[in-house]
Parts: sequence; C-alpha cells; structure tokens
Amino acid sequence: MIPIVSIVGKSDSGKTTLIEKLVPELTRRGYRVATVKHDTHGFEVDREGKDSWRHKQAGAHTVVISSPKKVALIRDVEKDLTLEEIRGKLVQDVDLILSEGYKKDVQPKIEIFRKEKHQELLCTKEDNLIAIVSDKTFNIGVPCFDLEDMAGLASFIETEFLKKKGKEDISLKVDGKIIPLKPFAKDFITKTIKGMVSSLKGCEKSERIEINIEGEER
Amino acid sequence: MIPIVSIVGKSDSGKTTLIEKLVPELTRRGYRVATVKHDTHGFEVDREGKDSWRHKQAGAHTVVISSPKKVALIRDVEKDLTLEEIRGKLVQDVDLILSEGYKKDVQPKIEIFRKEKHQELLCTKEDNLIAIVSDKTFNIGVPCFDLEDMAGLASFIETEFLKKKGKEDISLKVDGKIIPLKPFAKDFITKTIKGMVSSLKGCEKSERIEINIEGEER
Repeated sequence: MIPIVSIVGKSDSGKTTLIEKLVPELTRRGYRVATVKHDTHGFEVDREGKDSWRHKQAGAHTVVISSPKKVALIRDVEKDLTLEEIRGKLVQDVDLILSEGYKKDVQPKIEIFRKEKHQELLCTKEDNLIAIVSDKTFNIGVPCFDLEDMAGLASFIETEFLKKKGKEDISLKVDGKIIPLKPFAKDFITKTIKGMVSSLKGCEKSERIEINIEGEER
Repeated sequence: MIPIVSIVGKSDSGKTTLIEKLVPELTRRGYRVATVKHDTHGFEVDREGKDSWRHKQAGAHTVVISSPKKVALIRDVEKDLTLEEIRGKLVQDVDLILSEGYKKDVQPKIEIFRKEKHQELLCTKEDNLIAIVSDKTFNIGVPCFDLEDMAGLASFIETEFLKKKGKEDISLKVDGKIIPLKPFAKDFITKTIKGMVSSLKGCEKSERIEINIEGEER
C-alpha cells in the first residue's frame, strides 16, 4: 500500500511552501509523489463550454480528460473522502502520498511550526505526530528538522516509509467496504493467493497482486 | 468490470451533443456514468497560484483536490492511456464508461452519422461497431437509432451492457501487468477466493471482492 504522510500546521505556517520544497527533493531521489489538498470552497477544474465540461453538466458522475502527457479526472462524492479512501479510489503508480492539512485524519503527520507566528503545536504524539519542522526545538520525543533542512526531512520520510518494503501486506474490499483482517486470515489468504498465482505462466515471482472479482452468488 | 462504450463519429457529427442527451437518460434510469474525452491540445485543470497548482509545479506526479461534493485528480502519464488503462487506473463507482471518440481503441462503438454532413460511415463491424445513431438507415447488421431516440439507445446499452450481471468475472494483475486467465484458472481462483472470503465475518455473501497484495517473496 502507498504510504501517506500529512503535512499539517496552523494557518499561514507555510504548509504549501514546505511541500513545494519537499516534493523536488523526493523526486530527485527517484520517488514519485502524489499530493492531496482539501478544498472546502469548491474548485474549478474545467472551462465552461468545453466538451468535458458539457459532459459533467449533463450529469456524468465522473469525467476523465486524457492527453498524451497528463490525465485529469473529476468525480462526484457523497462526502469528504478520507486519505485512505483517496488512496483506494484514485491514486496509483506513486511511491508516497503527501497531504496538505488533514490534521483530523488518522495518517502520520509532520507539523510545520514557526515561533514568530504560533504559540503552541497543533498536534501531539496522540494525533500520530511523527516529526516537526520548525525554527524552534521541541522536546516531545519526535524528530525536529530545521525549516530549510529538506534533505534531513526527505531522508526521514525515506527511512520511515519508503525503504521499509519487504513486509507483505494485503488489503481486502468486499462490496466496496474495507474488511479488517486478523494476522492469521491475512497470512492464510496471502499465501493461498500467492501460491495459486505462482502456478500461472510468467507469474512465478510477484511483488504485487491485484484481483477484482465481480458477480453475484451462484 | 465496468463496461466501456465509445461514441464515435466524424468531426462535427454531434458526438458531444449525443453524450449530453444520453447521459441524463441513463442517469434517470439509475445508472452512474463516467465519460472520457481525449484532448490532444492539453488542458487547464487548475488555476495558476492555487495551492494544488503549486504542488503540480513543484513536480508532484499526481495532485488530488478533494472537497465534500467532488474530487479532482491530475496525474502524469508517459503515453496516451487506452480506455482499459483509464478504467483500471482511474475510474471507480460507476456502472458504465462512455468515451467520446477513441475510434482506434478496441472497445465497442456506437457511431453517430448525419446524412447532410457525411458520405460514409467511419466504422465497420470489424471495428467493433455495435450500433448507429443517424437520420439515415443502414443495413449492415447492427441496430440503427434515430438521432432523437435516446430512450431506444439507452435501452439498447442497458440490455447489452448493464443487465448482463450475474456472470462472474475476475481480473488479475501481477506487478502491474494484466494476466490473461484460461477458464479453468478463472474458475479455480474465483471459487477459492470466494470460499476463503465467505468464511470471514460479514462477508458471507459478496458481489465484489478486491484484493491487493504487496511485498516481495519471502
């Protein structure tokens, strides 16, 4: 599963600027990064009168605009998606998801803090705070990086989230709902499927298996 | 798997207008429709200066903008995606994908044709043409609908693609590549997984199972 890290901080703390500096540092190291931004005010994604805009106006639930270099998608949702739902429904082909904000989400958080702007931290370790980026040093048991130390911050993210491969993981969704699995079920299902798949030609070794089954009970 | 139907036709035949009329007819019948439009000229999906625009400028491979009613995603691709890749990588939670254009893709096609604009059809049955929408009648062995007969066209799509549920289907991807399965392997893997999953609490009956396994060989 693609790891998720949230960049949080009070308003005007410099979250977007931090992401603007961190993304190139991670990209330079060979990682593909997806970013997620919450927008309460709604947003404009397409120009009035364009064909894709006309599709959406006609009531299409989802509109995809495809070109040789980039693809865009606009879709309806019934409520704000969690970061886990965004990962499950939308994001593929990246190594890391960095969100701006999402302090109420359960994902690991890095807080940016500037002493001239703020009095106290927004998050505690109980909020899954894993690091601080600040011009002040905090002693609360998580690493603290200087505002300009992108190399240090990127190395921290790399060690914690991007080099920990090798651990097997399985996710199971039934009729759209994520089913939590106990270790025994996880191991049993993983090994059974890996065993079956390894008997198929060209699939003797596999790192990633994706299976979709559709259809009603027979 | 979500069915895909392409609305094709020569330029100025009224493809977008047809989609604008067909989508509400399908929506009224309770189906969720995704549309796909190819854009050779590139497109603007975000406003200069916005946070999400700054993320993309910084080199993010994918940018997601999330709000309570809609979600947008912009991602890099290395080449034009096929409709099957668009379905696999991007589209979820819909009943049907309607593309505008994509006449070279392998998916089933409905051609729109106007006698005052065109001399001959763009597609033949060999191109997977399954119906024609026109002010002229063709006798080439595929159903022909009047330009205004959206009810007839929607019923045709419904019968061909949306009411054929009940057939089980499985798709398997290993390390990102789609693995073709022979009927025996399909049946064996489907039944094994359905059997395992049905022993989990709350999963006794399932219509759709999605499994992702990641991790290297142990």
